[in-house]
Amino acid sequence: MTTPFEYATQQGDHYLNQLIDFLKIPSVSTDPKHKADMQKTAEWLKAHCESIGLNNVEIMETAGHPIVYADWLEAGEDKPTVLVYGHYDVQPVEDPSDPSVLGLWQSPPFEPTIRDGKLYARGATDDKGQTFVHLKAFDALMQSTGSFPVNIKLMIEGEEETGSANLLPYLKANLDLLKCDCVVVSDSDVLAEDIPSMTYGLRGMVYTEIEVRGGESDLHSGSFGGAVHNPVQALVEILAQLHDDNGTVTVPGFYDDVVPITDEERKALAAIPQTDEDFRREAQVKKLWGEKEYTFRERVGARPTLEINGMWGGFTGAGQKTVIGKKATAKVSCRLVANQNPNRIFDLIVKHIADITPDTVTSEVRNLSAYADPVLVPIEGDAMQVAAGAFEAVFGKKPVFIRSGGSIPVVGYLQQLMGVPVLLMGFGLPDDNLHAPNEKFNVNMFHKGIQTMMHFYQNIDQAF
Amino acid sequence: MTTPFEYATQQGDHYLNQLIDFLKIPSVSTDPKHKADMQKTAEWLKAHCESIGLNNVEIMETAGHPIVYADWLEAGEDKPTVLVYGHYDVQPVEDPSDPSVLGLWQSPPFEPTIRDGKLYARGATDDKGQTFVHLKAFDALMQSTGSFPVNIKLMIEGEEETGSANLLPYLKANLDLLKCDCVVVSDSDVLAEDIPSMTYGLRGMVYTEIEVRGGESDLHSGSFGGAVHNPVQALVEILAQLHDDNGTVTVPGFYDDVVPITDEERKALAAIPQTDEDFRREAQVKKLWGEKEYTFRERVGARPTLEINGMWGGFTGAGQKTVIGKKATAKVSCRLVANQNPNRIFDLIVKHIADITPDTVTSEVRNLSAYADPVLVPIEGDAMQVAAGAFEAVFGKKPVFIRSGGSIPVVGYLQQLMGVPVLLMGFGLPDDNLHAPNEKFNVNMFHKGIQTMMHFYQNIDQAF
Repeated sequence: MTTPFEYATQQGDHYLNQLIDFLKIPSVSTDPKHKADMQKTAEWLKAHCESIGLNNVEIMETAGHPIVYADWLEAGEDKPTVLVYGHYDVQPVEDPSDPSVLGLWQSPPFEPTIRDGKLYARGATDDKGQTFVHLKAFDALMQSTGSFPVNIKLMIEGEEETGSANLLPYLKANLDLLKCDCVVVSDSDVLAEDIPSMTYGLRGMVYTEIEVRGGESDLHSGSFGGAVHNPVQALVEILAQLHDDNGTVTVPGFYDDVVPITDEERKALAAIPQTDEDFRREAQVKKLWGEKEYTFRERVGARPTLEINGMWGGFTGAGQKTVIGKKATAKVSCRLVANQNPNRIFDLIVKHIADITPDTVTSEVRNLSAYADPVLVPIEGDAMQVAAGAFEAVFGKKPVFIRSGGSIPVVGYLQQLMGVPVLLMGFGLPDDNLHAPNEKFNVNMFHKGIQTMMHFYQNIDQAF
Repeated sequence: MTTPFEYATQQGDHYLNQLIDFLKIPSVSTDPKHKADMQKTAEWLKAHCESIGLNNVEIMETAGHPIVYADWLEAGEDKPTVLVYGHYDVQPVEDPSDPSVLGLWQSPPFEPTIRDGKLYARGATDDKGQTFVHLKAFDALMQSTGSFPVNIKLMIEGEEETGSANLLPYLKANLDLLKCDCVVVSDSDVLAEDIPSMTYGLRGMVYTEIEVRGGESDLHSGSFGGAVHNPVQALVEILAQLHDDNGTVTVPGFYDDVVPITDEERKALAAIPQTDEDFRREAQVKKLWGEKEYTFRERVGARPTLEINGMWGGFTGAGQKTVIGKKATAKVSCRLVANQNPNRIFDLIVKHIADITPDTVTSEVRNLSAYADPVLVPIEGDAMQVAAGAFEAVFGKKPVFIRSGGSIPVVGYLQQLMGVPVLLMGFGLPDDNLHAPNEKFNVNMFHKGIQTMMHFYQNIDQAF
């Protein structure tokens, strides 16, 4: 008799070809000229969900691109319900400001190509490929056993790459429909194929724009230089005060709500086989930087940051212009950790900038945030342990637990609105070239992802 | 009998109409599409110089736009020779990055228009109008007396607004031709029509670009934020250290060669009837800034500065991007005072930036300077006193002596190469809108300029 896992293996090439069909549609959500492709992708997904036995498949309209919903709720009321989140939209493949980017693709981004066991295409990992893992895990279990071990709901959006602007209203309007016992998101990666890992922490974010204004118009540096406060200078002075020499943020109250990293977490993070030198090389910088009392992995995952993402003011063209600009602007964002609240941090920044702005200029802080809460899912939770067991079963070793430095707003939304654990089960690899030319998904990771999710679905009822 | 001054007054309208003809030719030196207009302007000038009795009129080619030379050397060897410098090129009238600028002109910039006693046109003051003052002073004296009191040479260039790149080679190659006892430059302004003034000090300049580099490429602020030194942050830290809290420049050695301001100068500058509040209002800033131990006029005229003319790094578009840029750049220039040497100051900056660059990033300082020495012409000099007397004769009061915060490279060149006094006799007004829409020259100042220069030419032989 064929086990579900053997069945999935036998179907491997077929599944891969189906994914290739899915990847061929250029579902670039950021570009209006692909609007029809977005609809086409949603319809392709709907048809595919129906073909594998999912029920209630629906293309649900939003103010932007639609969300595809599907479920299978026939496992019975005594079985838990898992909600899967994924997204079918992909990053652009070109950079309008740099036409050379498109030429960097070794094969066309929407003509999926396998080279050396890697499937190259835009969206291969992020997130069409990882979303498809769930459909194939469902398919394999259904086809081989005639049933699925738990109730499952899928919510696949088309606006993740544009900031998920319409997702929160959708979630709020559909809380009953989406009710579940846990959520699974496959939109991240493992440290390496031989280092399975699970992300249990995500950083939140607040994004601000700080503007400093001097006079009403640009001034001549000869006529006024030395007697008026150059706004670029004033902004530089303000920004330079936002960290101390250790790289610690100096905004009063900034760290008040930070959940301290536990000894167990420090041990777990220290066990990750990546050295300072590995990380330095990955960053391609001269030397690492930051709070000395934390390792680089703790700094990136467990510590909040304040970062100048951009700054401009005065004359920025070629050559020389002896001007004192009328204003200077910086984009400053903070990566937040549990339990910092983005709104409170924004207020602290506003107050601090007002406090340290010299009286020779005026300043303003604007909130540009797409609200993102930090996330911390307890490692010891039952659902988390089942997920860890699924990784161990397929990868042959227990996953390490990592705190990611990034932010996935939807995870914060789901955790907050649903009050259930959100499990980040990613199957990408760090070298998958997300958001870059030559995005790829290792074929091996695609198949291991399917097997891992099958193990998970088979065992998740033990957690409830 | 008609005096030369009465003659000039009678000819006033005629002179003004000739200036209007001169202003109609769009001699924009920065814009290649006006190349033919530059030639046409030089030819107009040549013809005009010949028509008023100047000799040896020549359009002298350079690697860029030509220089118009003319002289009248028949006063005799016992009379001094005055060299007049002016420029026939003008600023652009539009801003390619802001098409609305052209619309701000109330009358077309090359259709000179008189409104309320002001002649509006590009170049009206800077510097066609002020150059023409000398031609008309010559004309009036020649026509009314049949002779000119001294020997005179005129050198009128066409590249002042593009940085006078070809002037220094021209000067060096023509030192004999240009030999003189003093130089007059009319390319500046008086404080007000009822406050005649003479500039005896100009600031020099060194212009640098400072670049700080982090990694080889932009980094994701989630994956790396907190563990690598953001180059924008590093540049901000570097720049914030270049001044102390008093606004004094902290580059070691920066002030070593500064000629201290004398008590007499402080008194003279303090006598200028312009209050802090006047200056603040002119700058349209909230509050003045700078070294507390100096008045604003001393800060602008007698003290060197270090100014961030522009800065950019990271993401500067609309919205948010969570990036750590790979580099950040600032344009930093210094206004220098006598006897600071631009090359030495550049070296001091290079050394200091290297010293304070953290070891997490790399930095580079580039020299963008069009070399400009600071200038200080002794107030008590004989030629300076004749010039002051000419102002007093026409404006009814002694001029105040000011140190300008600006830089006129040619003045430094002339002082250095010729070793003679360079007199800055300007007839513009602070509200003339130089380099801006609605540039104008008060008709009254045009006529007073002619009269002042006639007095000067009649008396300058007393200085030698």
